[in-house]
Amino acid sequence: MWSLVILILLSLFAYILTDELIYKLQSLFINAGLFGIDLCKVSKEKIPEAIGVISGCVFLITILLFIPIGFGYSLMDRGNFPHHEFAELLAALLSICCMLLLGFADDVLNLKWRYKLLLPTIASLPLLVVYYVNFNSTTFIIPIPLRQFFGISVNIGFLYYIYMGMLAVFCTNAINILAGINGLEVGQSVIIALSIILFNIIELRGDQYKAHNFSLHIMIPYLATTLALLKHNWYPSKVFVGDTFCYVSGMTFAVVGILSHFSKTVLLFFLPQIINFLYSVPQLFHIVPCPRHRLPKYSAETDLLRASRTVVLKKDMPLLTKVVLRIFTSLKLVDKVEDKDGVILNNMTLINLVLIKLGPMSEVQLTKTLLVFQIFCTCIAFLIRYPMASYFYDLNIYNNFVS
Amino acid sequence: MWSLVILILLSLFAYILTDELIYKLQSLFINAGLFGIDLCKVSKEKIPEAIGVISGCVFLITILLFIPIGFGYSLMDRGNFPHHEFAELLAALLSICCMLLLGFADDVLNLKWRYKLLLPTIASLPLLVVYYVNFNSTTFIIPIPLRQFFGISVNIGFLYYIYMGMLAVFCTNAINILAGINGLEVGQSVIIALSIILFNIIELRGDQYKAHNFSLHIMIPYLATTLALLKHNWYPSKVFVGDTFCYVSGMTFAVVGILSHFSKTVLLFFLPQIINFLYSVPQLFHIVPCPRHRLPKYSAETDLLRASRTVVLKKDMPLLTKVVLRIFTSLKLVDKVEDKDGVILNNMTLINLVLIKLGPMSEVQLTKTLLVFQIFCTCIAFLIRYPMASYFYDLNIYNNFVS
Ligand SMILES: [Mg+2]
Ligand SMILES: [Mg+2]
Repeated sequence: MWSLVILILLSLFAYILTDELIYKLQSLFINAGLFGIDLCKVSKEKIPEAIGVISGCVFLITILLFIPIGFGYSLMDRGNFPHHEFAELLAALLSICCMLLLGFADDVLNLKWRYKLLLPTIASLPLLVVYYVNFNSTTFIIPIPLRQFFGISVNIGFLYYIYMGMLAVFCTNAINILAGINGLEVGQSVIIALSIILFNIIELRGDQYKAHNFSLHIMIPYLATTLALLKHNWYPSKVFVGDTFCYVSGMTFAVVGILSHFSKTVLLFFLPQIINFLYSVPQLFHIVPCPRHRLPKYSAETDLLRASRTVVLKKDMPLLTKVVLRIFTSLKLVDKVEDKDGVILNNMTLINLVLIKLGPMSEVQLTKTLLVFQIFCTCIAFLIRYPMASYFYDLNIYNNFVS
Repeated sequence: MWSLVILILLSLFAYILTDELIYKLQSLFINAGLFGIDLCKVSKEKIPEAIGVISGCVFLITILLFIPIGFGYSLMDRGNFPHHEFAELLAALLSICCMLLLGFADDVLNLKWRYKLLLPTIASLPLLVVYYVNFNSTTFIIPIPLRQFFGISVNIGFLYYIYMGMLAVFCTNAINILAGINGLEVGQSVIIALSIILFNIIELRGDQYKAHNFSLHIMIPYLATTLALLKHNWYPSKVFVGDTFCYVSGMTFAVVGILSHFSKTVLLFFLPQIINFLYSVPQLFHIVPCPRHRLPKYSAETDLLRASRTVVLKKDMPLLTKVVLRIFTSLKLVDKVEDKDGVILNNMTLINLVLIKLGPMSEVQLTKTLLVFQIFCTCIAFLIRYPMASYFYDLNIYNNFVS
């Protein structure tokens, strides 16, 4: 318990340090050509980009500095030093550090997609090895209604490792594609982090308390540094966070999900990101044309944002595209205008979906709406995880396995 | 032994991959504004900078991919998994990854000196914790001639950890300041790496073979990726390696020195860097004025390099400066011209020292001369470490302790 108190104090300090460093180092980023223009503003001033590297570094340093404190008691008694727990923490830090490096390299160099998919997989390798030697529990508990088909649990063995590797890739990219308006990336990450922390605190009384304690030791410094970033990134943004931040955040959530065995709960907290990803699939796989930016369109006269649009030419339209368009139209998920040459529809992101459903709104209102939806999804996640879990699972078995 | 064979094959592949990626990704660096002009050439073309990040990443990825292979045998038998060895490797990778990030950030953002000193110290923290729990041997063996004063061995306790933290800082910066002409940073690192590998191979037969085996598993992929970098960085350089490379190299050498308990032998291999550092001290601490670049001066007519110079004004010359100048002059370590206003002397780097002693020479000849000196120092190191060690130490005790 003392270790948590010290960690919280250290995290407060980390908040102040991040805040201070963002002020101080901004000009370095602009001098290095790391800046962007806010497309949803009238002013065309240079805004420093990739500032997530500052909060990420402070986050990493906080945990590094905490190592001698966190393991202080064990350090006295070297014979019984918990090497496996220490290896767990090191693997977590290594994966996060790799993503920090990859994200920053992406912001500076603009890497190709293949690297963005390959490198997180490799970066999660130490995690998987740690998981293998420390737990190697590859069993899914089957929900009660489905047990007649699959039995009580299914051991998916090697596939479980593939699942975990893909989780890392998914988390790192999912936040990155639900982004683009002031404060959204950071805001959603703060809400996910708070959800995980709440979940950990509830579970501290359970018999998996060690795993949840571990998760808290990662999430608290993460939250502190991210809040400092949010202060500068909230509307109107003084800094942009870059891919760096999205990658670090995604990997951090994947790391605690994997090593503290609640990866499915983490996925529940990722509901808006999953919806956004599924909704984006037609454009991500170029079934529907995908312009370089899918940001909402800013109108300087009204100071409001409206959904941006893409055009599908009717000539030589592939069958798959036709089918996809028909499905999305019948589900009322796109706002579509047709003329004789082509179909004009909104870019398929959750952000644009909100705009076509609720009408044009200001940027800050849009961010708030999306964050309220994120909070709503967290409530659903807790509903599924707790009251409804007794319907899907008998809890005695459930709590003893990976959740 | 098989694990070494697989590692060598993997390293060959890493060499090819690094070589390929350097070709392919160069343009990304130039587009991102990461380029420099070679000051010692007539042509003023843009040369991509910070390419060390490519070799560093491939180096890291190679070791990450090797984890499941290297621990393959242990993975079969999870009950006896060597958690402490795994933690050792993870700590090593974490420290190297932190330096890769710091180096790249420095190349992009031009960090201030304080960060360059502070961050390697923090990055070496996991190393020190691993060292503490796995060994905690903080005993120096005293050379025989000095035993009448200090006894057989001295346990310096906590100071040993300070020494190791400073070793990381020293190694990362020492390579960085013996640099600036084509192929020198990478060339010296290759020679140090080869020296360490040779030393490890010799010691594989000793009773510390596990530690030396560990070191080999880090140094071989390092050597492979660095050789690929040397191919592009050798005179005339097609790429510059940046601080990234120097930091990663320094930390890699410090890591194996610390975790495999031959930090003093590593320091012997760093003799030219130590000489360069000591010789640079008056300028590093601004006792003698230090211009922004201390590179030798290139003359386009002769295509030769000559020592660059700095000016000390005689008016208000501090006493310390006077004393330092007198000492260095009497040791014939500076080439000095005086007039009534000031003293003109060469910039105090090993590179310039070679030029004032041997006269102007071409860039490639200068690099070769310095590398020959590096090899010469390796020979001295082996001479001290082996034949002379029996004079300084009785070897039975020595081999059982940290060397
Ligand atoms: Mg990018
Ligand atoms: Mg620099």
